[in-house]
Amino acid sequence: MSNRGCLFIVGLGPGAAATMTPQAREAIERTSVVIGYEGYFAWIADLIAGKECITLPLTQEVERARMAVRRATQGDSVSLISSGDAGIYGMASLVLEMLESDGATDGLEVTVIPGLSAVNARASLRGAPRAHDFAVISRSDLLTPGELSERRLLAAAGADFVVALLNPKSGRRAWQFPRARDLLLHHLPPETPAGLVRNAYRPGQSVEVTTLVQMADSPVDMLTTVIVGNSRTRLLGHRLVTPRGYRLDAEDPRP
Amino acid sequence: MSNRGCLFIVGLGPGAAATMTPQAREAIERTSVVIGYEGYFAWIADLIAGKECITLPLTQEVERARMAVRRATQGDSVSLISSGDAGIYGMASLVLEMLESDGATDGLEVTVIPGLSAVNARASLRGAPRAHDFAVISRSDLLTPGELSERRLLAAAGADFVVALLNPKSGRRAWQFPRARDLLLHHLPPETPAGLVRNAYRPGQSVEVTTLVQMADSPVDMLTTVIVGNSRTRLLGHRLVTPRGYRLDAEDPRP
Repeated sequence: MSNRGCLFIVGLGPGAAATMTPQAREAIERTSVVIGYEGYFAWIADLIAGKECITLPLTQEVERARMAVRRATQGDSVSLISSGDAGIYGMASLVLEMLESDGATDGLEVTVIPGLSAVNARASLRGAPRAHDFAVISRSDLLTPGELSERRLLAAAGADFVVALLNPKSGRRAWQFPRARDLLLHHLPPETPAGLVRNAYRPGQSVEVTTLVQMADSPVDMLTTVIVGNSRTRLLGHRLVTPRGYRLDAEDPRP
Repeated sequence: MSNRGCLFIVGLGPGAAATMTPQAREAIERTSVVIGYEGYFAWIADLIAGKECITLPLTQEVERARMAVRRATQGDSVSLISSGDAGIYGMASLVLEMLESDGATDGLEVTVIPGLSAVNARASLRGAPRAHDFAVISRSDLLTPGELSERRLLAAAGADFVVALLNPKSGRRAWQFPRARDLLLHHLPPETPAGLVRNAYRPGQSVEVTTLVQMADSPVDMLTTVIVGNSRTRLLGHRLVTPRGYRLDAEDPRP
């Protein structure tokens, strides 16, 4: 028997209340402690009255995860909140690893609540660039060795995946985005459509459509998602569309 | 000037009301015509009273899209509903292509409403396998040439992506799933963790954790999503976890 609490790892979605699932709201409502980066609490202001809210800065992921595990292990009901989908570059894997290394998994109920990922949200704003196979690559070399990230860019373009590029550059890594463009140009034509979205579904949202060869001329930052089409992606109006392969002129919808 | 209507292409999420965004609900509430595969209407039964509901079978994607465009062009407000995220192997690209080929884009307001994708939802049920770069590959050769799909499997495993495999096999393609396993085994160890989820967040949900070499021994169908880890993915309890690269033993959370 155990008097341990429970821990929800909650993906809030991209930020607007309109994109948060009822499941995520309910998880937060059910817990007495909410832990997260302080910027996220504004998104759930209507849910946190009377709850203990613990904020830690954006860089302190390990500390946030550790605090959530500790409080849950002590018997509290805890929500650890994450933007987007908690499983995509989010807090879920960090917590699960930590539980293992602490030998603390017994008796602690841990639930991962999926959210609308930033990639999905941003892609929708640009049309339907990912109606076909796609690859998601984060260029943050804090967590992925640069060499591996570059190998993935080449492999993805070589196999004609649509590519979503997260964290395309930060102040310290201004060379990374032109470098990604050059790697993709090994396999893709210069005029391949590319889309840049910043702050999807948040204040200050911007959407820009450009081409692979020109995309590095546009301003990007850590909050920008870049989607680069594959050989079949076309620009229709201001939207990127990757055909699914249906024949639109035929009676039989299958190619 | 135009008296055209509006068209929402709505991602409902994986199926449970708890995973549908308020934005998706509001879009359906705002429209007078709802078009989709009949199986989806049960998910939104509370939203469709008094609306004109048009159902077409699962194979008739082109017909559904065409009807939605026609009705919206005639001045109706229309929701075309899709499971998961409308932009991921969903209806969005089909509609946008169709509008272009019909020359019907002028004056018609088309909005893509993202949903919780089946991939996200299923991955959450297995832990956090995609905390790192990942590739999504559909094995439906109705829409993707088999050769290209196989090239993508090899490229993804060779560049150490976590791989999500959709539509791993159907009755007519029983050989496809063992073939995918064999391709991934070119680059990944046999004991690489793999997870199989069927009917995520729907009645009959099942989750199974296995290994790459053994995965083709498990029953799969068109509704199963298979996630195969990368070289760093480990099995923690019954969950797949791909470490993000944080050092858990250090004061500094960055590696």
